[in-house]
Amino acid sequence: MLPVRLYTLRAVGACMLALAGAGHAAELPARATLAEVIAASPASAWRPLDPANTLYMELPGGRVVIELAPVFAPRHVANIRTLVRERYFDGLAVLRSQDNWVVQWGDPNEAQPKSLGTASATLPGEFTIPLRKDRHFTRLRERDVYAAQVGHSAGMPSARDPASKQAWLAHCYGMVGVGRDSGADSGNGSALYVVIGHGPRHLDRNITVVGRVVAGMALLSTVPRGPGPMGFFDQPGQHVPIAALTLAADVPAAARSALEVMRTDSATYQKAVEAQRNRGGPWTKVAAGHIDLCNAPIPVRTVAAGAGAP
Amino acid sequence: MLPVRLYTLRAVGACMLALAGAGHAAELPARATLAEVIAASPASAWRPLDPANTLYMELPGGRVVIELAPVFAPRHVANIRTLVRERYFDGLAVLRSQDNWVVQWGDPNEAQPKSLGTASATLPGEFTIPLRKDRHFTRLRERDVYAAQVGHSAGMPSARDPASKQAWLAHCYGMVGVGRDSGADSGNGSALYVVIGHGPRHLDRNITVVGRVVAGMALLSTVPRGPGPMGFFDQPGQHVPIAALTLAADVPAAARSALEVMRTDSATYQKAVEAQRNRGGPWTKVAAGHIDLCNAPIPVRTVAAGAGAP
Repeated sequence: MLPVRLYTLRAVGACMLALAGAGHAAELPARATLAEVIAASPASAWRPLDPANTLYMELPGGRVVIELAPVFAPRHVANIRTLVRERYFDGLAVLRSQDNWVVQWGDPNEAQPKSLGTASATLPGEFTIPLRKDRHFTRLRERDVYAAQVGHSAGMPSARDPASKQAWLAHCYGMVGVGRDSGADSGNGSALYVVIGHGPRHLDRNITVVGRVVAGMALLSTVPRGPGPMGFFDQPGQHVPIAALTLAADVPAAARSALEVMRTDSATYQKAVEAQRNRGGPWTKVAAGHIDLCNAPIPVRTVAAGAGAP
Repeated sequence: MLPVRLYTLRAVGACMLALAGAGHAAELPARATLAEVIAASPASAWRPLDPANTLYMELPGGRVVIELAPVFAPRHVANIRTLVRERYFDGLAVLRSQDNWVVQWGDPNEAQPKSLGTASATLPGEFTIPLRKDRHFTRLRERDVYAAQVGHSAGMPSARDPASKQAWLAHCYGMVGVGRDSGADSGNGSALYVVIGHGPRHLDRNITVVGRVVAGMALLSTVPRGPGPMGFFDQPGQHVPIAALTLAADVPAAARSALEVMRTDSATYQKAVEAQRNRGGPWTKVAAGHIDLCNAPIPVRTVAAGAGAP
C-alpha cells in the first residue's frame, strides 16, 4: 500500500528532470499536472544557466550546482567569484548541519583561518535592493505571511515592499545565503549556507542572499546533523570536504552540468504554478487553490545526458 | 567567520532542549529571545507526553518519538495503535526518502505484504474534523496562504475554515501523515510518512495527518534520498530497518523518553511565538513582525537525564 500519488515536483533543487528533447509545445489537459506542463513546455520557456553566475561545489557524493543572483547581491557575488577563482573554498568543508534550518560551509579552522586572498574581508550587507532594480519581477497572486508582494525575480523566489520601495530574495528551501556575525557588514561570502528546512522567511532582509541550489540539493540536505551548538560539527571527522568550488565559466564545456531552468517570467511558468495550486490527477481530493511562495516549483532539467551532468 | 547568531530554536523536532529544573518563572527582558522565554517558563507551561498517544520508532541511529493526535484522526490513530501493539512495524523499514518532501516507512515487500493482523485494511479518510470537535484551538494572528485561520490544536499546527466549519492538522515540517493511494479511503496507517521539507500545505485536507515527530527528527530527515521514482529505494540495502515501533505505554517507565512539550494554549507559548515573530538579540536587524504557522516553534524539553531519553 504505497501512496503512489503522494507526489509532486518540488519547488527547488530536488526538481531535477531528464527531459532532453521535450521542447515541443503540446496540448495541455484541463487541470494539467506539473509533469504535463513540463512535458508540453516550449523550448522558449527554458533558459540555460549563465556559466559566469554558476558555481560547482564538488563534494564526495557529487556536484552541487548553485546559481548566483548578482542583481540582488552584486558586491557579494563579485567577492564570491574572487574567492572561488582564487580557490579559497578548495579543501575547506561543510562544517554545520542544523535540522530544519541550514547546512553551512566554509573554513572550519577558526584558530588559523585561510587567507581571503584579494577578496574583501567585510562588505556592506546587501539585504534588499531598490525596487527599481528588481526588473522582470513576476508576481504571484497569493497573499503572503511576510511581505506585501511575492513572486519571482532573477528566476528565484523574491518579495517586494512597495511602501519602502525595497525588494529582496526570499529564504526558501534551497536558497543560499551569506553567514555573518552580529554586524550587518560582517559577512563577505566566505561562509555560505543553504536552507534545508521550512523556509525561515523571518530571516528575510537580515541576511545577504546570493543564490539558489539548482542541482545536488540532497548532497547537502542529508549531511548528518552536527552535535554541537547550532549544528556545528565538533569533530574534524564530521566535516564533509569540499574538493573544489569552481565557477562554471572556468570549467571546460564538456565538464559542465547541462542544465536549464524554467523561465519564471514565461507563460509556461504560470501554468506550472497553477498546476501546484490546483493539482491535477486522481489523487487530489481538495485543490488548495493557493500556493506558498516557497512551494512554487522552479523546474530544472538536464538538456544532455552525461557530460558532467550531476 | 561563523555566523554565531544565525540561530533560532526550530518549530519542530529539532527543538530539543535539556532544561531539567528550568521550571521557575523569571523576569523576561523586552524582545526576549525564544531561549529566554523557555528559560523563564513556569512548569505549568509544559505538558508531558501521554504514553497512550506516543510512539517510539527504534532506528539504527536511535529513537524517533511521535506524538499522535487522536482528536483529529481517531480511527487511524486507533488502527495504528493496533498495528503497533501487534508489532506490525517491527522488522519493516524506512523505504522512501524524497528531498524537500517526505520520508516514509512501512512494508517494503509489495509482492508478499505483511499481514495487518486485526487492524483494518481500509479506513475512511480523516482529512478534516468538524470545527466543534477542535477544542482548545489557539489562533495565531497571522494571515495564512492556505487557510482562513491557523494556530495550534492538540499541541500541533492546525488550520480552520469557519465557512465549511472544518478543522485540520497542517502539513508542517515534522508532521506525520498516512500514505494512501488515489482512493480517499485507501489508507490505514500501515504506511506513514513525515514531512522533511518546506511544509507542503497544499496537501492539507487531502491526507489523514495523525501526529508529529517531537524528537529524533534528524534520524529521518538525513536518510539518503532514494534513487527511484518519488524517492523510493530501489535496493533492499537502502532500507533503514525499523527494529521496533512501540507505544510508550507498553515500554517500562525507565525506558521511556522523558519529554515535555510546551503547551500551545499557554501564555508562555504566546511569548515563544512573539520571540519568533520579532527576534531579540543583536543579530536581528529587521524584525519580521509575522510568523508562518510552520515556523512557529513548539519547544520540547527533556525533564530527566538518561533513562531512555533520545
